[in-house]
Amino acid sequence: MSARPLRLSTTEPGFEAAFGARLHWSAETDAQVEERVTEILADVARRGDEAVLAYTARFDALQATGMQALELKASELQAAFEALPAVQREALEQAAARVRRYHEAQKRASGESWSWREPDGTLLGQKVTPLDRVGIYVPGGKAAYPSSVLMNAIPAQVAGVGEIIMVVPTPRGERNPLVLAAAHVAGVTRAFCIGGAQAIAALAYGTATVPRVDKITGPGNAYVASAKRRVFGQVGIDMIAGPSEILVLADGSTPPDWVAMDLFSQAEHDELAQSILLCPDAGYIDRVQAEIDRLLPQMPRAAIIASSLNGRGALIHTRSMEEACDISNRIAPEHLEIASADPHRWEPLLRHAGAIFLGAYTSESLGDYCAGPNHVLPTSSTARFSSPLGVYDFQKRSSLIEVSEEGAQTLGRIASVLAHGEGLQAHARAAEMRLKP
Amino acid sequence: MSARPLRLSTTEPGFEAAFGARLHWSAETDAQVEERVTEILADVARRGDEAVLAYTARFDALQATGMQALELKASELQAAFEALPAVQREALEQAAARVRRYHEAQKRASGESWSWREPDGTLLGQKVTPLDRVGIYVPGGKAAYPSSVLMNAIPAQVAGVGEIIMVVPTPRGERNPLVLAAAHVAGVTRAFCIGGAQAIAALAYGTATVPRVDKITGPGNAYVASAKRRVFGQVGIDMIAGPSEILVLADGSTPPDWVAMDLFSQAEHDELAQSILLCPDAGYIDRVQAEIDRLLPQMPRAAIIASSLNGRGALIHTRSMEEACDISNRIAPEHLEIASADPHRWEPLLRHAGAIFLGAYTSESLGDYCAGPNHVLPTSSTARFSSPLGVYDFQKRSSLIEVSEEGAQTLGRIASVLAHGEGLQAHARAAEMRLKP
Repeated sequence: MSARPLRLSTTEPGFEAAFGARLHWSAETDAQVEERVTEILADVARRGDEAVLAYTARFDALQATGMQALELKASELQAAFEALPAVQREALEQAAARVRRYHEAQKRASGESWSWREPDGTLLGQKVTPLDRVGIYVPGGKAAYPSSVLMNAIPAQVAGVGEIIMVVPTPRGERNPLVLAAAHVAGVTRAFCIGGAQAIAALAYGTATVPRVDKITGPGNAYVASAKRRVFGQVGIDMIAGPSEILVLADGSTPPDWVAMDLFSQAEHDELAQSILLCPDAGYIDRVQAEIDRLLPQMPRAAIIASSLNGRGALIHTRSMEEACDISNRIAPEHLEIASADPHRWEPLLRHAGAIFLGAYTSESLGDYCAGPNHVLPTSSTARFSSPLGVYDFQKRSSLIEVSEEGAQTLGRIASVLAHGEGLQAHARAAEMRLKP
Repeated sequence: MSARPLRLSTTEPGFEAAFGARLHWSAETDAQVEERVTEILADVARRGDEAVLAYTARFDALQATGMQALELKASELQAAFEALPAVQREALEQAAARVRRYHEAQKRASGESWSWREPDGTLLGQKVTPLDRVGIYVPGGKAAYPSSVLMNAIPAQVAGVGEIIMVVPTPRGERNPLVLAAAHVAGVTRAFCIGGAQAIAALAYGTATVPRVDKITGPGNAYVASAKRRVFGQVGIDMIAGPSEILVLADGSTPPDWVAMDLFSQAEHDELAQSILLCPDAGYIDRVQAEIDRLLPQMPRAAIIASSLNGRGALIHTRSMEEACDISNRIAPEHLEIASADPHRWEPLLRHAGAIFLGAYTSESLGDYCAGPNHVLPTSSTARFSSPLGVYDFQKRSSLIEVSEEGAQTLGRIASVLAHGEGLQAHARAAEMRLKP
């Protein structure tokens, strides 16, 4: 088995076409998935718990006597935590503490209410409040990630959300103890062993047992993504995630085996994950390829890594670090490592990225688990316009306006002119009524 | 013609059912609209300008020789502004200045980058950057609102967005001078006389003439809403707006004609707009109804107002102001007026609203035009989880992580344990490689 990411150079005439083709990824929606999801949503809206139980029996091979049997008690989450080996318990707690501290700083920086009074007594401001109740979707089965539980639940908890409802499918009744333990550590309020479009429907519409939430976050398969897209508007949702990506900008100063392993750590997620290296030093790119060749056979997930790197990976030789930064901005990567001796020189040039990892010691994996920032990040170029999951996703804002009698004299005249200009006479009259005669 | 909003009392046994029925509004998607929009999006993606021109000829009855002919030059926007009567010019400028000042405060409060260093040298933070290019949809024809141009473009400008592209349909070539003037005042970069799904497609995909944007905001008809929903993911979008709503909480201290006119000012938007009064004083409700009867015949848009109030309006007698606040929280209204002598007593009880207008002098119309806060607000109960349009909608965040050599020793051990727990060995190895031997 070998892993040979596509080798490109920006000086080659065919670069643009080859680069474009490698980046291409289409979130084609499957008509059959859409149709099935439409049915499931309508059925859960109509039959509630009964429908959720039927789909859970069918898709997760899990027969339950009732929805109560699918709820995980707080004591079960706690017991899962306590049954873990000490080293895992401590790692979970330390990671949670760091994630909590970062999100508390985020809340102080951008999530507090504010207002001011103008000289005429008019008050303007914005009130920031937590959502009442949110749902967190946690994938089950082969890709069960306790770190995702922390990354979704902790920002909600820091925001002050009243109830955090977790859903996690447990195919054939198999529960992942680390996921349950993470739910305990992260402060999940209630948890249900359900998944797929039926779990999204239960959270969006509510059933006799599953409470209706205001927003749903967390990744899932094509059914989950389609269901989230459909219920958007009735509830809030986070971004629809595409395959995970890493882009490494290297000036040649980081040990090449570290960079090779960082590329692997993205590639091992799945065959569609994308790992790209941008570097102005062709000799360094050769050394990274040599380390890929050397390290690949040691990896338990070598087959997935090879498939991802061969199908979607790229090692790109650039004219300069500046050009590498330009290309990175065109990609707007989810994860962006600046493997440079002088990362702060390049950071200001980088306009679009979910998370920026500066310097040789900052492997993406440290950020994935425990540095503190969120690992739920915008994929597929959406970092052009969207942000990491954060406390702000679990808050909403209300404008505050208190116009004084004096203020109403100034504002009323402006509003009256503009309202008449738009042909909205009741708007104008409402302002004019507040004017002193 | 008469306007008789549904009269309800929370003490009646049938209240819940009647209240639920009155609130009900469904954003049913029309299959024909969906099909047509799918065709238009695909056609613009394929044929670019040519398709946009063809649809503009067909739907807007506007034949153009080429896309250049549909672009509004900066000089045309300026000329439109200069040709306005002085009173309108000044009102636009004063409103713009206030809106700008509010959004600058919002940026200072929640839109700046931040970071800190830990004792071991590790840096954590978040970089906040403006979007590169955004598109603003402005409806044309019967509901052409210059104030919407200000409310969409100014937050983008304050955020630091590089290019603001406005699209506005001009049926039969009729241009609204106030809309053009507002674009000049608000700092729109380029403007095109196109609309409908074809304009959304042009902004989302780009054509030879219309540049591709990163996000599209602004209200539109069913075709525009459907197109925005479809292109979401390729570009960012703001909320899909439903009918506009006002809820007035009254303790009986505000002149009843002021409250009646505030209810009218929502109802005059369209037949589906919703105006609701909640008040513990039945006599006051009678006086508001009497003012409705007295004022309605004076209103140029009386037919729309009557239709809206009769079909969707409600005057609800509550047991107390506290109960009125509870009901308001269930509705999560777009606009919420606290028509009370002591508005700050009730404001803390109100958890969900797009904008809160405190006190008798704060008519919604002052907020719509010139108080400063944005008038693009979450409708249809989405204030449970979403926020007014703001500077934050035109910014995105990137996490910043710089782990020091020392920090990598602590974090690497935690990450290694958790990565092995998730079966992601390359993640673990990447962390372990940074550990000192």
